[in-house]
Amino acid sequence: MIVILKNNPDKSQLDSLISWIKEKGLQVHMSVGENHTVLGLIGDTSKIDIDLISALDIVDTVKRVQEPYKNANRKFHPEDTVIKVRDTQIGGGNLTVIAGPCSVESEKQIIEIARAVKASGATMLRGGAFKPRTSPYSFQGLCGEGIELLKLARRETGLPIVTEIMDASQLPLFEDVDVIQVGARNMQNFNLLKELGRQDKPILLKRGLSSTYEEWLMSAEYIMSGGNEKVILCERGIRTFETYVRNTLDLTSVPVLRQLTHLPNIIDPSHATGRSAFVPPMALAAVAAGADGLIMEVHNDPPRALSDGPQSIRPEVFDALTKKLFALHSFMRENSQG
Amino acid sequence: MIVILKNNPDKSQLDSLISWIKEKGLQVHMSVGENHTVLGLIGDTSKIDIDLISALDIVDTVKRVQEPYKNANRKFHPEDTVIKVRDTQIGGGNLTVIAGPCSVESEKQIIEIARAVKASGATMLRGGAFKPRTSPYSFQGLCGEGIELLKLARRETGLPIVTEIMDASQLPLFEDVDVIQVGARNMQNFNLLKELGRQDKPILLKRGLSSTYEEWLMSAEYIMSGGNEKVILCERGIRTFETYVRNTLDLTSVPVLRQLTHLPNIIDPSHATGRSAFVPPMALAAVAAGADGLIMEVHNDPPRALSDGPQSIRPEVFDALTKKLFALHSFMRENSQG
Amino acid sequence: MIVILKNNPDKSQLDSLISWIKEKGLQVHMSVGENHTVLGLIGDTSKIDIDLISALDIVDTVKRVQEPYKNANRKFHPEDTVIKVRDTQIGGGNLTVIAGPCSVESEKQIIEIARAVKASGATMLRGGAFKPRTSPYSFQGLCGEGIELLKLARRETGLPIVTEIMDASQLPLFEDVDVIQVGARNMQNFNLLKELGRQDKPILLKRGLSSTYEEWLMSAEYIMSGGNEKVILCERGIRTFETYVRNTLDLTSVPVLRQLTHLPNIIDPSHATGRSAFVPPMALAAVAAGADGLIMEVHNDPPRALSDGPQSIRPEVFDALTKKLFALHSFMRENSQG
Amino acid sequence: MIVILKNNPDKSQLDSLISWIKEKGLQVHMSVGENHTVLGLIGDTSKIDIDLISALDIVDTVKRVQEPYKNANRKFHPEDTVIKVRDTQIGGGNLTVIAGPCSVESEKQIIEIARAVKASGATMLRGGAFKPRTSPYSFQGLCGEGIELLKLARRETGLPIVTEIMDASQLPLFEDVDVIQVGARNMQNFNLLKELGRQDKPILLKRGLSSTYEEWLMSAEYIMSGGNEKVILCERGIRTFETYVRNTLDLTSVPVLRQLTHLPNIIDPSHATGRSAFVPPMALAAVAAGADGLIMEVHNDPPRALSDGPQSIRPEVFDALTKKLFALHSFMRENSQG
Repeated sequence: MIVILKNNPDKSQLDSLISWIKEKGLQVHMSVGENHTVLGLIGDTSKIDIDLISALDIVDTVKRVQEPYKNANRKFHPEDTVIKVRDTQIGGGNLTVIAGPCSVESEKQIIEIARAVKASGATMLRGGAFKPRTSPYSFQGLCGEGIELLKLARRETGLPIVTEIMDASQLPLFEDVDVIQVGARNMQNFNLLKELGRQDKPILLKRGLSSTYEEWLMSAEYIMSGGNEKVILCERGIRTFETYVRNTLDLTSVPVLRQLTHLPNIIDPSHATGRSAFVPPMALAAVAAGADGLIMEVHNDPPRALSDGPQSIRPEVFDALTKKLFALHSFMRENSQG
Repeated sequence: MIVILKNNPDKSQLDSLISWIKEKGLQVHMSVGENHTVLGLIGDTSKIDIDLISALDIVDTVKRVQEPYKNANRKFHPEDTVIKVRDTQIGGGNLTVIAGPCSVESEKQIIEIARAVKASGATMLRGGAFKPRTSPYSFQGLCGEGIELLKLARRETGLPIVTEIMDASQLPLFEDVDVIQVGARNMQNFNLLKELGRQDKPILLKRGLSSTYEEWLMSAEYIMSGGNEKVILCERGIRTFETYVRNTLDLTSVPVLRQLTHLPNIIDPSHATGRSAFVPPMALAAVAAGADGLIMEVHNDPPRALSDGPQSIRPEVFDALTKKLFALHSFMRENSQG
Repeated sequence: MIVILKNNPDKSQLDSLISWIKEKGLQVHMSVGENHTVLGLIGDTSKIDIDLISALDIVDTVKRVQEPYKNANRKFHPEDTVIKVRDTQIGGGNLTVIAGPCSVESEKQIIEIARAVKASGATMLRGGAFKPRTSPYSFQGLCGEGIELLKLARRETGLPIVTEIMDASQLPLFEDVDVIQVGARNMQNFNLLKELGRQDKPILLKRGLSSTYEEWLMSAEYIMSGGNEKVILCERGIRTFETYVRNTLDLTSVPVLRQLTHLPNIIDPSHATGRSAFVPPMALAAVAAGADGLIMEVHNDPPRALSDGPQSIRPEVFDALTKKLFALHSFMRENSQG
Repeated sequence: MIVILKNNPDKSQLDSLISWIKEKGLQVHMSVGENHTVLGLIGDTSKIDIDLISALDIVDTVKRVQEPYKNANRKFHPEDTVIKVRDTQIGGGNLTVIAGPCSVESEKQIIEIARAVKASGATMLRGGAFKPRTSPYSFQGLCGEGIELLKLARRETGLPIVTEIMDASQLPLFEDVDVIQVGARNMQNFNLLKELGRQDKPILLKRGLSSTYEEWLMSAEYIMSGGNEKVILCERGIRTFETYVRNTLDLTSVPVLRQLTHLPNIIDPSHATGRSAFVPPMALAAVAAGADGLIMEVHNDPPRALSDGPQSIRPEVFDALTKKLFALHSFMRENSQG
């Protein structure tokens, strides 16, 4: 951490700042320049509250050198984290393909889709039971009943299930869910993250619509600092000025996260683009960029979907796509070893 | 609502769409052009799920003409909403000045500040008990104890108190709080909004960092559709590419909200700018733009503040500023009547 | 074009609006609703000035149905445009690989790099002669001398050359350049675009840092409406809140542009990411997404590069990458035909 | 400037870096930490090319402490710059009010408006002759003829004139113009900025739609480093996710620029909001925030304006507004001295 002081800092304030830093177990190196004096803080600064120092009268700005996250940081955990979910593994060179409808609508619907995506090669089933909607007048999901239907579909197909939680009070309903999803709008719902840190269950943490990589990793850190290290990061598009697509898929997150963290990272091309025609090319691009997996919406009857219809692909499109994705994944692995 | 169809829409699908729309109690006007056929939906479309129609095979795009919020809409409630909180009123030409520390730290601190801001003319006291922090390692607030200290300060000064809630499970602690604040990161925590819709208490709803006016008003609509019409909107800066200030204060929200909604709207120049030097000019600008009030951080000892220090102003700065704010408010009223 | 009128529009103003529209050769369909009257304009509205109509007292909002660009629009030119540059072709299923240093620095440097990238399979040589720099104190390029050195390198290798123009007054120096590049900051330098519309030479048009697809295509339209139809679109990263990478590469632009326009589109992963480590994965992802090509910075001596060093890859990295890119391109073609 | 090195930097590369820095007349202070070695560069670093250092193999990141602009920097020129234009002064506590039509359309139009705004108290006349339009099919301005009409209006009223240049080749036509405007899209047209640096004429430099304060000041620096110190900064709204207004007016730029630079800064509420109803409140807010002036569009016949109609106010609105603006300006001056 670099602390840049204002011109001519008050001597006694500077002394107490330096003592305070040393009390925290850090060393201080001071550089005195013409216009600025600079303090270099050496040691583990991840638990230093940057705002506390910024607030001091004698301080101009504070800049971090070290990342503020530790449990999620690859520097301290060089090995990839691999997360086991029933018979499947996420991370570690595997390609995870999660598929299913935006919303669970009925037993018939979810079982039909689950069978179809399983036959095409999906490794996990998704489906919304609690739906975050910007309008109170839109369909809000089947809630607990939706989770029951997902379990039925799991019994039929053996596919592990992933579904979204919106509030910690819903946790009892998620007891038998395999992976709990945190949606983009809840990425900084810190109370929810703390509760999930106390669960022994993988968490699929979606990136907030306008969040930076660091903020995203800090949200993973909230979960991990509570003791739950099974976090899967999921990029699902960020908000930009472009309105032709719903959001802008940030595929560079794939190699960036690979560098910054040991956690697996997957891509959601359905929500990112909001248009089914763009799902296949972006899913392929995600695999080429090195993503650990994909989560995609598949619907057997898009025109009558109760929510988010325009981004869902049909089972036959998904089938052709999945074949290409696995072939591409093999191709990439062979060529990286060549 | 305008529905733009694709070229040569399937006749039977078009017929079932038109029947479905009519079942909803709406009229349909059709315009057939060379490249596009356009349907105009006439009537109350606020409860139509736009995604349902967009999902149809024959539909190219859907555009709203009418706003999707109704309770918050000035078109249906032309009169300003005025919210009474103990002896003070928010909206209706009054200037509300809410002040206090970022975080409640101790009895001595909160009572000293409460007395100071009351003496300067503040009409309400703010102070954080539950603090949303991006890092799990930062100070998280005094929680329930903080709320007790705020009540003590209220007893001493008579100032109504406003403090932030982070989760619906904290509601019992807020029973005797005058105004409940929803922070920017929780603006789309829909479960929380629904719970607040069942309370009989004013809600100060901060705008999300990257939210549009419509999304913000839809979050107000969540609260109002539950039966609680006492919503105060608070702009607190939006995220832009600028990093010199913490956020960018969108003062145009003041006249825009005045036009779109009957709800009162106030400005938070402290969080918006993140730097105390910019709080006075932006507070004055907010009053000149016609805001119903301000919420500002005041700290008696900024260098040792436990959180968000750089944006807090000192009591003597607040005192001089408040005098100017009320003088300017009078000046603006006189000149608008001239 | 849809014109939504205010409530109770003045009858005579409405009549003159309708006459004016009909004079432009368009038909008008009117839908009268409870709250809004809507006009549908039928015919070629691409040359209608939307601001003129918006300005009318009786008009609430105007929404386009038809795209405002015509020459660049795939609807009117369904076939892909293929651009021939000496012995190479851009678009039409070919993979164009443009490589070279950020800035041309010396004869030795440019010839060495040109030979290296040619040997690796590059199809075109890039190199900056005029450099747009945010600081007047940064290196501004070798200008005319840089272009001469590029021509020397072309003579040595046969690779066509592409280099950036910053002002129409530099055009005489570009007479013997194969492809003229327009940089992101000049995407809306309309005078320059008009001049380029009068040239008989391919133009590589980079997307502005905060531009939408439509604005980008309108800039292509400026060039094309002047008579020059040889426009290559190049995504080079957009500005977002993320600061860890220089810009955010918007790879979804690839399938979007494929749908909206017949012009070829290529990707610049070097400027987009600003970090050499992320260039290979994003180049591979671009090919998987279906891009017509790539433009990448390659430097034989990154640490001493006179500008933009951190994003350049070394020739040996480029060599391995290019082999993978062509292999992936073949793989994608085979699998799309399967 | 702070240079953060990678772990275990190569000794000989580090030595050559340090020598190179010392050759530039700077001192180097080194802090060696557990994970990072940090170099502090002391002296005038404004002319150091940050990219050159970032490109080195041993360097992790480089952070500036000192601003990269010098001529525009208040630290080196503490006194406000006051720019004299004929009989009026910009900066130094004066309130400059620039008004006129978006586009010059005819002699009658410009003279009528010029007389009206002069009578209301405007201190300068604006009007577009060269119009930057996103569509090649929109009205592009009267060009040279427009400038002649502005001069006519100046002869009639005595008001100095300000109009926009789009390309350095147009400079001969601007010889007798009082203030040359650079539009938002040309803020980083570096060739144009360099040419304007050689003129002896005030330049009104609009902020780019997505530019930071630092980039804006660097563009001012381009002009000033060429010898022309008469730069007026003009905020005209930045691009955000909000689409209800055209752009988001960043009024915090007023106190920020006051702190960073000695140059005068004015506000354009017409382009920023894009809607005439929001011009008066935002103009008043700008004066309360401490702006040196305003530039506003006034049109005698909005419905038939040839461009940008929706944002223009009528002369009677302008007249009432100008009275309030000057009254508010006096009020603010009296109260700041109180």
